[in-house]
Amino acid sequence: FVQCDADVVGSKSLVNEVELAGIYATVFRKLGVDIELKLNSRKILAALAEHCGGTDKLTDITVAIDKLDKIGLDKVATELVERGLNDQQVDTIKSYLAISGNNRTKLATLRELIPGEHAAAGIEELEYLLNFPGTNYQDAVVVDLTLARGLNYYTGLIFEVKAKNVQMGSIGGGGRYDDLTGLFGVADIPGVGISFGVDRIYDVMDELNLFPKDVRTGTQVLFFNLGEAESKVAFGIIGELREAGVRCELYPEQVKIDKQYKYAEKKQIPFTVSIGTKESEEQKCVVKNLLTREQVTISFSDLIHFNFAK
Amino acid sequence: FVQCDADVVGSKSLVNEVELAGIYATVFRKLGVDIELKLNSRKILAALAEHCGGTDKLTDITVAIDKLDKIGLDKVATELVERGLNDQQVDTIKSYLAISGNNRTKLATLRELIPGEHAAAGIEELEYLLNFPGTNYQDAVVVDLTLARGLNYYTGLIFEVKAKNVQMGSIGGGGRYDDLTGLFGVADIPGVGISFGVDRIYDVMDELNLFPKDVRTGTQVLFFNLGEAESKVAFGIIGELREAGVRCELYPEQVKIDKQYKYAEKKQIPFTVSIGTKESEEQKCVVKNLLTREQVTISFSDLIHFNFAK
Repeated sequence: FVQCDADVVGSKSLVNEVELAGIYATVFRKLGVDIELKLNSRKILAALAEHCGGTDKLTDITVAIDKLDKIGLDKVATELVERGLNDQQVDTIKSYLAISGNNRTKLATLRELIPGEHAAAGIEELEYLLNFPGTNYQDAVVVDLTLARGLNYYTGLIFEVKAKNVQMGSIGGGGRYDDLTGLFGVADIPGVGISFGVDRIYDVMDELNLFPKDVRTGTQVLFFNLGEAESKVAFGIIGELREAGVRCELYPEQVKIDKQYKYAEKKQIPFTVSIGTKESEEQKCVVKNLLTREQVTISFSDLIHFNFAK
Repeated sequence: FVQCDADVVGSKSLVNEVELAGIYATVFRKLGVDIELKLNSRKILAALAEHCGGTDKLTDITVAIDKLDKIGLDKVATELVERGLNDQQVDTIKSYLAISGNNRTKLATLRELIPGEHAAAGIEELEYLLNFPGTNYQDAVVVDLTLARGLNYYTGLIFEVKAKNVQMGSIGGGGRYDDLTGLFGVADIPGVGISFGVDRIYDVMDELNLFPKDVRTGTQVLFFNLGEAESKVAFGIIGELREAGVRCELYPEQVKIDKQYKYAEKKQIPFTVSIGTKESEEQKCVVKNLLTREQVTISFSDLIHFNFAK
């Protein structure tokens, strides 16, 4: 798969998270994709684990929570029991996963369920992003306390992007990783980053018909291939038109004209140009609009000024 | 490594090779990279093998020829002997590899050395590209009979691109592969394609200093971080400036102003903007040009019209 990333390394400031959330909002608005930008903090998950009897439970809890979408709350509870959590702990986690309401309600409920400075630190991060003035991502942000992100190197705020109106997994994700470089032997380099899942974004845009039609069409003008000598003449003109920004191509083989027409129709190429022996001698060509079926005979020198807009 | 390809599938016409050679010439001219576009044909190599006693020698010959650059003519000859070719055959190959002169001379010499229709078919392909009218690649094309391309699926014309004025392997290559899909069980789909070696092209452009300076700089304006409240005000203005196409960023942390200045200088950011408590109240800011050391105090509303060009 193809992934496109934006990262800020070397700074612990939450302003970076604000910037990255803004990049998500800007990019997906430009692409025309309505998104939910899910937010959570690893600090909240760590506080939940602590509250359930110890930070050594963190991985067990996140792995189980991560499956919530797929297997449902009951099976998550079963898995937690299998992973050695007792009934009271599982109940706490169920209460945690059941927190609902708007973003502010969720955070207020959470503050009651898990008191203490560790949860508060995570809640403050989320509030910082929610309350930052003048941002463009507010409509998209959804605090999602069930968001865990599989990767264990995240340390603070975590992001996930879901496209609205289409069945598709996350099309982006990321978070703060203040100890990631430590894994590679270089300590104390904080970082935060987001990813764009390019293949999935393509699929989403394809499903929602967001690609402009002319992106697909590509070629505006098909030059018919009417023989070796004629196509060399055509090729010279094609070069000039391309220089002028017109997207054109020569049908590569001299086959029946019907076949060349069908190719133009199939590829939704709006114009064709014919240069036969006679036209070549007279320095003229026949331009046909395949939509309107209109055609005109014009000189080679006029062709460069022809308006190939549909 | 990252590779970018252009392929035409479904057509045997040599016009496609003309188009692809044109794409190479156009792209590298736009990038400012002077190139040699090396051409050969697998048909010529096959005719050479046939002339040396059989097509079963083709792989032995191409593998050895492919090493010519690295090990030299004598060692290629030694390798050919080891691979079972006799002295007369090795002499023929040495004569072949020694063919020199301009493109037309090379082809004429080759026609004498290897007569017969098979070599002629390859020579005709090369001549088709060399003689095609109105193309933009003529200055770059070098017929290179020692070009073999390691991959055995090529069947016709083969390409390789070498950057001039820089020590670097090929930065592009390709060729016709009329039986490639046969390897995957689908017969009779001809194709021809070229590749761009993106990483190497980057390195070439870097070495030749072809990247424009402002590509590196990126940010035009650094907003100093002078406190939590002030930076939120700055952030709002940054949003407006970005909408207007100005590339700006907020220093993410409130550290000593010296450190923020040094950051701007190191990243060659030409302008800084300061919004302190007083400026924030007065809706003003101080804009400084780090090159000329000039600074002006202007209102927030005027900032959007400020000319941040150096």
